[in-house]
Amino acid sequence: MKRTTFQDMPCPVAQALEHIGEWWTLLILREAFFGRRRFGEFQQELGIAKNVLASRLRKLVDHGILRREPSKSDGREIEYRLTDKGRDLMPVLLALAQWGERWMYAGRGPWRFRNRHTGAELRRLVPHDREGVELSARDLEIVSREDALSPTEGRRAGVRKGSR
Amino acid sequence: MKRTTFQDMPCPVAQALEHIGEWWTLLILREAFFGRRRFGEFQQELGIAKNVLASRLRKLVDHGILRREPSKSDGREIEYRLTDKGRDLMPVLLALAQWGERWMYAGRGPWRFRNRHTGAELRRLVPHDREGVELSARDLEIVSREDALSPTEGRRAGVRKGSR
Repeated sequence: MKRTTFQDMPCPVAQALEHIGEWWTLLILREAFFGRRRFGEFQQELGIAKNVLASRLRKLVDHGILRREPSKSDGREIEYRLTDKGRDLMPVLLALAQWGERWMYAGRGPWRFRNRHTGAELRRLVPHDREGVELSARDLEIVSREDALSPTEGRRAGVRKGSR
Repeated sequence: MKRTTFQDMPCPVAQALEHIGEWWTLLILREAFFGRRRFGEFQQELGIAKNVLASRLRKLVDHGILRREPSKSDGREIEYRLTDKGRDLMPVLLALAQWGERWMYAGRGPWRFRNRHTGAELRRLVPHDREGVELSARDLEIVSREDALSPTEGRRAGVRKGSR
């Protein structure tokens, strides 16, 4: 059974899900943010089947979210490290974690997030507009952009920009 | 083939994915944020099979993310509306949309997000600590909480709190 693809859906949510819209993928990224880098580390932390892990890692590398490189301590070992595109997923994981924390743990979940330099705890991620006004779902308006790129143009433009 | 469940994984990301970690579910929620309420509207916008849509909506209602209620204009019609728990997913969808916009559309995606009252465009969702300091992935530290609830306790506490 092949899953539907969202590749042609002109929507940044669908386009994002096309790359990361799957349970294991997000948990692999969670582990990458926790500093795991090696196949065996991911496997052990997640208890995921090796073939599933291998296929998800390959997909994340293909999408430029992780990169493979030889370990600095042992050049025969391969490490998977977050790229800029991968690191930029932090707000997505954080928003998910804060929602889970709030609604599944009544605010007392297993983790605290804080500034590693000062120990200050994190605020909830809340949308703000350019004037600094906080927006609830009801204040938010979504309008079409007339000069939008297609996902293909966008990816091409992004690659050019990224390779400078 | 049954999917692995993350129900016992003590992690707010896994717990959140347990409820919404699936492509169609997030796109159904996207449509709910766009103001769709009826089965037929979701079906038409998403081009999703009726049985799949019915099962996803049922799950979202079971999890308290959407609620079913008779339409105000025609009491025989059922509407699906976001609960507080559902509306609270807005930062998750927005973070996903901003990531997709940035990396798949080189910043020129199909939508603009703005303050409906003033037209001011949205800022990117960026983590801040309680002192107002902006944090990158590298500045973020995740530590265990000693007095954490289990997901079950958390959900029970949440229900009590919600039903006051």
